[in-house]
Amino acid sequence: MRHRLSSDQYTAGILASDRLLLSQAITLTESRRTDDQTLAQQVLERVLPQTGNSIRIGITGVPGVGKSTFIEAIGAYLTSLGHRLAVLTIDPTSQRSGGSLLGDKTRMDTLSMNPNAYIRPSPAGDSLGGVTHHTRESMLLCEAAGFDVILIETVGVGQSETVVHGMVDFFLLLMLAGAGDELQGMKRGIMELADALAITKADGDNQISANRAQIEYKNALHLFPPTGTGWFPTVLMCSAMTGMGIKEIWHTIQEHQQLTSQNGHRTRRRQEQQLTWFRSLVRQQLESNFYNQPDVHNQLSEVEEQIRAGTLLPTPAAKRLIDQLAKGK
Amino acid sequence: MRHRLSSDQYTAGILASDRLLLSQAITLTESRRTDDQTLAQQVLERVLPQTGNSIRIGITGVPGVGKSTFIEAIGAYLTSLGHRLAVLTIDPTSQRSGGSLLGDKTRMDTLSMNPNAYIRPSPAGDSLGGVTHHTRESMLLCEAAGFDVILIETVGVGQSETVVHGMVDFFLLLMLAGAGDELQGMKRGIMELADALAITKADGDNQISANRAQIEYKNALHLFPPTGTGWFPTVLMCSAMTGMGIKEIWHTIQEHQQLTSQNGHRTRRRQEQQLTWFRSLVRQQLESNFYNQPDVHNQLSEVEEQIRAGTLLPTPAAKRLIDQLAKGK
Repeated sequence: MRHRLSSDQYTAGILASDRLLLSQAITLTESRRTDDQTLAQQVLERVLPQTGNSIRIGITGVPGVGKSTFIEAIGAYLTSLGHRLAVLTIDPTSQRSGGSLLGDKTRMDTLSMNPNAYIRPSPAGDSLGGVTHHTRESMLLCEAAGFDVILIETVGVGQSETVVHGMVDFFLLLMLAGAGDELQGMKRGIMELADALAITKADGDNQISANRAQIEYKNALHLFPPTGTGWFPTVLMCSAMTGMGIKEIWHTIQEHQQLTSQNGHRTRRRQEQQLTWFRSLVRQQLESNFYNQPDVHNQLSEVEEQIRAGTLLPTPAAKRLIDQLAKGK
Repeated sequence: MRHRLSSDQYTAGILASDRLLLSQAITLTESRRTDDQTLAQQVLERVLPQTGNSIRIGITGVPGVGKSTFIEAIGAYLTSLGHRLAVLTIDPTSQRSGGSLLGDKTRMDTLSMNPNAYIRPSPAGDSLGGVTHHTRESMLLCEAAGFDVILIETVGVGQSETVVHGMVDFFLLLMLAGAGDELQGMKRGIMELADALAITKADGDNQISANRAQIEYKNALHLFPPTGTGWFPTVLMCSAMTGMGIKEIWHTIQEHQQLTSQNGHRTRRRQEQQLTWFRSLVRQQLESNFYNQPDVHNQLSEVEEQIRAGTLLPTPAAKRLIDQLAKGK
């Protein structure tokens, strides 16, 4: 499929901001082949000292909220300030092979031609764990390639928001103005992950309802307790069409960055994220080793059927399966 | 410590509503001794067909919201209607041995002397998983003993709410009236677990602020999307002192029960809860087997220190530890 390079070559290429080698290295991290994985891990370990220097931002919102046009707008603004921007998109609805639906780069026409921006869709993988894994590693590779702002975009309909929240410094929730039902279809609980809400499409006839929504959301955020970081989530407005509010959103992100750098919370948040990632990798691996045991695999559906029917209690069921594994070894 | 009975004796006693044997059986499920656990599981399996016939209700709220007096009030009302009520309290701040702080039954003086009520504190256990485990099993034993309403009470400050939400049919959040900051100290996200909110102490001078809080919370709940069960969470008021609102809360719970029984959601929710419980028991056991391996245990703190410092990536760290376990076997 591709010419195989050494980890030296990948490392040198990435550190020299070679976009082709960066893309190939990301593809390696996503590969299921053992040799690809080994190579990917070698590259990651070598570039590790050059990572961690970006502002990591998660962006989410329901389909139709205007995520792509927002990212186009803020991307144009950030690159005009001299920033180098990497956009990683996660589409949990797409499948691994065959590529991601979000891979359709025409979604971000202008930005994708900008030499200081890099857009990369993350395939959904087979599990949410897969998404985390790949996206985190892609982020590190982009940082090593000198991108100083990383945007991670998800569709606000699944569990992926919690996962993305666990790998960024700042989590931005895009919202549509409209009365009350704008959260329809969005998973409960996403709002309270947000460090800021931004009401999109606040232009023309929408302006009035955007103003009203801003007040409503401010009131709603008021009911949530402090985040424990000294930061109070805020509600902003923007229009990708007129450009209104884009600058203010970036200022808000910078303020948050400054506050949490000074009070040490940014470092603590990242350390916690690393440890959580480690623990979840261990858990994933243990579970996958367990459920892939032929004995366990063969009995699982019957056991689960009995549990569902209420004829078998979970405690003896779990014990029986685990004892079997121990015996099988 | 106690006279050892057979599983036959425990089973017969529980089914005959013998409170002493019920209490002893619950103590067995909480024991760490293998023989106690074996006996407990035998009893549980035997009473299993007689379980599942209660309305399972979770109740939470910050300290000071008046959970005990509320439970006294609704308990008096329910027993007057002929219901038999079991109250299981979880106190995550207490430790296993030495008993639970909530074990101080003087908190529910009147109810504890009511022959149709049974109050049992759950010791916190060593882990949240422990709490789940014991409380679920206690609930099943109480159902087998003929209690048709189970209240599970937690202090609204920790993770235990999510756990309790995962074992009940209806989740009630008690709130204090007061401006804006009443959610202080409560874990974010509890509000959206609720099937209903009840504003307590809505009497005398508090009445006005309770009315205001009711409107505020109704507006806030409006921003959350539907629960997917056809049920819309509602905001009620009550006073344990005057008795106002207690009946309405019970009616709301019954309406929810009727709706979710008819549309099949109650059954599905319970089946899901059982499977989730099973999966989490397996996960707990796998993780505890893993982290208790001497090799893993010895290296863990060093590995985590390197991860925290950013000098070791989680992926190779997890792989290394897990490979070691495989070799060690």
